[in-house]
Amino acid sequence: MDRKLRVQTINNLVDNLLVSYKEEERIQPHGACPMPNRDTIIKIAKQMRKLIFPGYFDGYACSKDILQYHTGELLVYVHESLTEQIIYALSLDENRHNKSEKLICKREEMIDKATELSFKILSKLPTIREYLSTDVQGALDGDPAASSLEEIVFSYPGIFSITMHRIAHEMYLLNIPLIPRILSEYSHSITGIDINPGAQIGKYFFIDHGTGVVIGETTIIGNNVKIYQGVTLGALSTRGGQKLKGSKRHPTIEDGVTIYSGASVLGGDTVIGEGATIGSNAFITDSVPKGTKVSVKNPELILKNREHRELKQDYSEV
Amino acid sequence: MDRKLRVQTINNLVDNLLVSYKEEERIQPHGACPMPNRDTIIKIAKQMRKLIFPGYFDGYACSKDILQYHTGELLVYVHESLTEQIIYALSLDENRHNKSEKLICKREEMIDKATELSFKILSKLPTIREYLSTDVQGALDGDPAASSLEEIVFSYPGIFSITMHRIAHEMYLLNIPLIPRILSEYSHSITGIDINPGAQIGKYFFIDHGTGVVIGETTIIGNNVKIYQGVTLGALSTRGGQKLKGSKRHPTIEDGVTIYSGASVLGGDTVIGEGATIGSNAFITDSVPKGTKVSVKNPELILKNREHRELKQDYSEV
Amino acid sequence: MDRKLRVQTINNLVDNLLVSYKEEERIQPHGACPMPNRDTIIKIAKQMRKLIFPGYFDGYACSKDILQYHTGELLVYVHESLTEQIIYALSLDENRHNKSEKLICKREEMIDKATELSFKILSKLPTIREYLSTDVQGALDGDPAASSLEEIVFSYPGIFSITMHRIAHEMYLLNIPLIPRILSEYSHSITGIDINPGAQIGKYFFIDHGTGVVIGETTIIGNNVKIYQGVTLGALSTRGGQKLKGSKRHPTIEDGVTIYSGASVLGGDTVIGEGATIGSNAFITDSVPKGTKVSVKNPELILKNREHRELKQDYSEV
Repeated sequence: MDRKLRVQTINNLVDNLLVSYKEEERIQPHGACPMPNRDTIIKIAKQMRKLIFPGYFDGYACSKDILQYHTGELLVYVHESLTEQIIYALSLDENRHNKSEKLICKREEMIDKATELSFKILSKLPTIREYLSTDVQGALDGDPAASSLEEIVFSYPGIFSITMHRIAHEMYLLNIPLIPRILSEYSHSITGIDINPGAQIGKYFFIDHGTGVVIGETTIIGNNVKIYQGVTLGALSTRGGQKLKGSKRHPTIEDGVTIYSGASVLGGDTVIGEGATIGSNAFITDSVPKGTKVSVKNPELILKNREHRELKQDYSEV
Repeated sequence: MDRKLRVQTINNLVDNLLVSYKEEERIQPHGACPMPNRDTIIKIAKQMRKLIFPGYFDGYACSKDILQYHTGELLVYVHESLTEQIIYALSLDENRHNKSEKLICKREEMIDKATELSFKILSKLPTIREYLSTDVQGALDGDPAASSLEEIVFSYPGIFSITMHRIAHEMYLLNIPLIPRILSEYSHSITGIDINPGAQIGKYFFIDHGTGVVIGETTIIGNNVKIYQGVTLGALSTRGGQKLKGSKRHPTIEDGVTIYSGASVLGGDTVIGEGATIGSNAFITDSVPKGTKVSVKNPELILKNREHRELKQDYSEV
Repeated sequence: MDRKLRVQTINNLVDNLLVSYKEEERIQPHGACPMPNRDTIIKIAKQMRKLIFPGYFDGYACSKDILQYHTGELLVYVHESLTEQIIYALSLDENRHNKSEKLICKREEMIDKATELSFKILSKLPTIREYLSTDVQGALDGDPAASSLEEIVFSYPGIFSITMHRIAHEMYLLNIPLIPRILSEYSHSITGIDINPGAQIGKYFFIDHGTGVVIGETTIIGNNVKIYQGVTLGALSTRGGQKLKGSKRHPTIEDGVTIYSGASVLGGDTVIGEGATIGSNAFITDSVPKGTKVSVKNPELILKNREHRELKQDYSEV
């Protein structure tokens, strides 16, 4: 292809995209203000994790002598970057229904509010640490394969997920738009565990393996709850779409409940009572009283030998 | 360990690896040409996402004034990098059955073909945007937890997945080897949603939560289809292995179908008719007529209280 | 917010965090020695993958002429970085029960042991390649959607997962603390496949799609085994917590077994005999003799038409 044709082709492609940017209103560019930036928010989240677990993710020893400098430096960085992202999130939220390019970025007006919100989140870090310290213990107590508290902090997806969730949940409570969900979906992409920032979760929370877990926005979870891979704490129906917004659509799980792999617990009025155990693959849409053990009469197995003859469960021929 | 022994040990390890590189023919190095590079292809995919959603992933405001420069610069980069990767993919495909080092990289002969293919893909971007604009709307309509179109673009794994799929599918249609699958597995690793590049998918497509979803190569999906986590649209059997290549092995899902979490729909002749609803955990291997609501008689639950006495479903004792 | 107040707020936040670092003993910083670094370990893992598959992930052609330099350079890097990380892992393990700041980093005393361990792992690379070569073949034989051996190496999550597992398992056998699990959870985060480093896995192993697969620490898997997404090879109960450590809690899967999506095989005494097939969603807690085909009598479906009238399985009205 000669150079002239190549340039012309590129020009045409650009022109067609510019037309498309105007036509597809739902996904138009926003010209007024930068949008919150996913990469920056993820970087902030990683630095907050370093503030929560000093020395674990830094690559150097955080001895007593340097701990205050390490903490101060990280905290200033996180505060400033987070403030900036909150400004963009608030601006976008305000401009949402009016995407005119004439809108100006109300950066100056929002600095104070964003600064305050950023400080409020950072002031929650000691409480978040208090909760996470119990979560790490919960993992050690619950998993025979765990070798140490450090191994759990370094590598367990359940701990990564609940760390990110506890941060995102504080942002959710402060009505910060967009950022909590970006955090929770970052965590989802790393762990396969999808916890909506709205979910309320108590102490000593442990998710083992975790891939496929879904915990909905209005879920309430007590202390000492243990959940396995593939568990859904979900809504009965989302057919109402946006009309259901704000209603309690997801279950309540009381203290000391264990929910085994693949089980679904659905519905805003569904309460799993204290100390109950929900077996693998159970499908629960009604409340379960405290102390109850629910298991599933597993679907009957059909066994055939190599000659395709059916076998009984004791493997003698039918 | 003294320095001499250390050097000798390293030399031995290198020698043993060099022997292994010769012996294991299936995973030999290819000396003729660079191979397509996964990291570069992922970078290209991210830049294409920026072309599709300008301003959303850039970290700065894409105002009207700069939009054409932003677009032009990204497009030139994507075009050139993609052309290079297509050259490598075509070369590898040609050399596949003949790994002789004597093969030369037919770079020059392939530039024109690769340039053209790269332009063809880029020319699809406005159409891809048209479809994605409907997918974003589908997510907003279908999820009470969604706050805005922007939140969906920024964070929803279903949107990430369908964005990558719509790009990979265009490459698949152009018979570009290797790159579409690298893209789809990149998306799978980020989202837990595994869509083969061959799958045909209509407008307003929404996958909620998404972890564990599998959509096979010959699946056909209509408009306004909604799918939840853990759904498999798969083959009945792959025992035939490579002999089954090319045959329709995966189902057809017509317009307006909803498939809830954990359901499997299997087989190339299986058609889920317009407007049908498939309940959680259903296992479907036969066609379902339009408008049908399929639910599962869930496996019976066995309830026991703390004294291990069995309870009825109403929690009175048996 | 004026500058003075801002500085004061930051100082307070730092002080509160420093108090929290002292109070929460379980997640205290360790001052004696750097801890193993997850990012560095992941980088080492990626370089080991380049040593295993030269040319596939480098971005340039590994021709015969340069292969020894490529190999030598990577190997020296991996050896040195890995030695360093093993030193930190051994130090942490030793200091685990005594987090006093007075502990010194026993770096010097551990160099020799760590150097030897690092060499031992690297000496396994040819054997790991021998196994992986069969795994790649297993994927090609088992998946009609696979186009070439190279596509499988580049993009299949099952191959990424088994590559990382075969490295992590060698480290596990050498009793290296922390690092194997960091590797396996890195792989889990990329693929959704969670294989504990302790699992023993034979040749020609293929995991298709893979999201949600869990393979426990004491699982034993023979040759030519094929596993689909969502399969759990797990423990019957982990209620014993740390007391169960070391016992065989997970099943044995003999040669030539296929386990379809969503099936669970649980328990340390459970043996799936040679050549058996386990159907989708089967829940197995007892041994299955060789050659047996186990399928599930799937839960009955309830079909209703648009007028909410119930339909028979043949779609005539009830």
